[in-house]
Amino acid sequence: MTTSREIRLKSRPVGTPTAANFELVKVDLADPGPGQVQVRNTWMTVDPYMRGRMNDVKSYAPPFQLGEAMQGGAVGEVTASNDPAFKAGDLVQSFFGWREAFNAPAVAVQKLDTHGLPPQAFLGFAGMPGLTAYVGLLRIAELKEGDVVFVSGAAGAVGSVVCQIAKIKGHTVIGSAGGAAKTAFLKDIGVDHVIDYKAEKDLTAAVLRAAPDGIDVYFDNVGGAHLEAALMTAKPFGRFALCGMISQYNNTDLGEGVRGMVMAVGKSLTLRGFIVSNHTDMQAAYVKDLAGWVAAGKIKSHETVKQGIEAAPEAFLGLFKGENLGKMLVKLS
Amino acid sequence: MTTSREIRLKSRPVGTPTAANFELVKVDLADPGPGQVQVRNTWMTVDPYMRGRMNDVKSYAPPFQLGEAMQGGAVGEVTASNDPAFKAGDLVQSFFGWREAFNAPAVAVQKLDTHGLPPQAFLGFAGMPGLTAYVGLLRIAELKEGDVVFVSGAAGAVGSVVCQIAKIKGHTVIGSAGGAAKTAFLKDIGVDHVIDYKAEKDLTAAVLRAAPDGIDVYFDNVGGAHLEAALMTAKPFGRFALCGMISQYNNTDLGEGVRGMVMAVGKSLTLRGFIVSNHTDMQAAYVKDLAGWVAAGKIKSHETVKQGIEAAPEAFLGLFKGENLGKMLVKLS
Repeated sequence: MTTSREIRLKSRPVGTPTAANFELVKVDLADPGPGQVQVRNTWMTVDPYMRGRMNDVKSYAPPFQLGEAMQGGAVGEVTASNDPAFKAGDLVQSFFGWREAFNAPAVAVQKLDTHGLPPQAFLGFAGMPGLTAYVGLLRIAELKEGDVVFVSGAAGAVGSVVCQIAKIKGHTVIGSAGGAAKTAFLKDIGVDHVIDYKAEKDLTAAVLRAAPDGIDVYFDNVGGAHLEAALMTAKPFGRFALCGMISQYNNTDLGEGVRGMVMAVGKSLTLRGFIVSNHTDMQAAYVKDLAGWVAAGKIKSHETVKQGIEAAPEAFLGLFKGENLGKMLVKLS
Repeated sequence: MTTSREIRLKSRPVGTPTAANFELVKVDLADPGPGQVQVRNTWMTVDPYMRGRMNDVKSYAPPFQLGEAMQGGAVGEVTASNDPAFKAGDLVQSFFGWREAFNAPAVAVQKLDTHGLPPQAFLGFAGMPGLTAYVGLLRIAELKEGDVVFVSGAAGAVGSVVCQIAKIKGHTVIGSAGGAAKTAFLKDIGVDHVIDYKAEKDLTAAVLRAAPDGIDVYFDNVGGAHLEAALMTAKPFGRFALCGMISQYNNTDLGEGVRGMVMAVGKSLTLRGFIVSNHTDMQAAYVKDLAGWVAAGKIKSHETVKQGIEAAPEAFLGLFKGENLGKMLVKLS
């Protein structure tokens, strides 16, 4: 018998979520039952896609339930095991985030071999966000030699990996992010042309300054004005990977609309939305490529870390204010 | 020596073009020179894409030049030939539309074997608009068994062929057009669910009444509110062929914007613009399929015909007022 604290969904947000939508609850945790393991989480992730799960609508991931703990990726340590495959001290990954500790059937957690990386990297560039970048760039946008790549949300968890993979593959990369810290970070990871969108009145003009002949690939994490600028500046046969549109997630209606969609006809553009969970067949290839890039010092992670389960809502809300540089994480113990 | 009349671009339109942008000019036509043929056009086509060529901007087709005859598809008869491959009376196709007669190098015109179809069909369902429908549906939207297909501009030159091909292939087809004559025409060609968009306040609701589970394929000829409705009603992995956006061609700015683009992420949609001239490799397959469908009485053409070269501007302007049922054509002699 031990205790855990968890974050529950208290109410569904209308528009931008606030701290009042969450509730921190202390719960008793029984000893693990037969076939179960008990895990104490050391890290949890907050990701923009979780905003959609706070709504009571059918989507690719089911909605969070009111009064129940939220869910998401986590890394932790087995503290007790009733399954022969696990022993105390084992490092594991699970989707039982948003809580300090939990019991679960052994099959619901995965042993984590870090290959020498810090464990929390598997919630970031070595995990789902990294694979998202890889899938979006290579499969969805069909990156090919000579492509000029424009990335929005470039300093975020996914965007920063997109930029680095594109640089590793020898591309000219234009990255957009907001504010001095993020633009400095983008220069640091080798982005060729850095746009501080908060300092630009006309994003299209900013992209054209960086790429007078236009862009071939656009990796969208933001939507809205960034997507418009990409439509305006795309070369014929440009390919857009639509990964996320964080500018739109808190809309209570259909929002303002993306102008310039007619460009997609005249320029034969392909715009393709994707969800990484439909592309896990690329996981093995990514892990292999990533190992080589890490060993060669070609890719690095940057993290914004909040401390303690009580900070998880604040970490999540910070995503929509652009507070994260690289991956937003919560350190739980 | 003979005479011809031709329509020249007198001024570039700002926004919606008017009759004042065109000029009817009578010209003397010398006898054809060495290697030339002289052709008297019997039919010419007007198509929405020509609006883009009236602007002085680089696009997939070069701009029309001020003070020069406009260009476009035409069918005509050779009246004199200085090339052994042609003789008077031969039926030919060319891009020397918008004029009654012309001299051209023999290589610039193509002999037309009508296979028993009326010659003007090759400006419509047996020509570029028909191939556009075929390419968009089969290659761009990757039509597959069981797809529910939504078509905007469904009573137009391209849309009406899209509807018929989709029906031939056994699909459920939802067609949108404006007004009683067009909706009656759509019922006549076998469209399953006909939407009169002029009578609907909420296009999304109208599509969902026709397809409660959503649509798989959207063939866009219109853009704007139709594209929004398609985004809202698409099933996961829906595929959009962006063929044209006639609602947007006369915009003087970026227009109102398409809301709901964020749906493309969550539903893993693919939106793909295309220009038929990049897909002429499918011409042979289309001609073969079409011959079979025509022989079996499975596909028919509908035409809206204006008389005489002087009516060509009016025919063209009518496209943007939705005046055409099926293919808009001008009969020249």
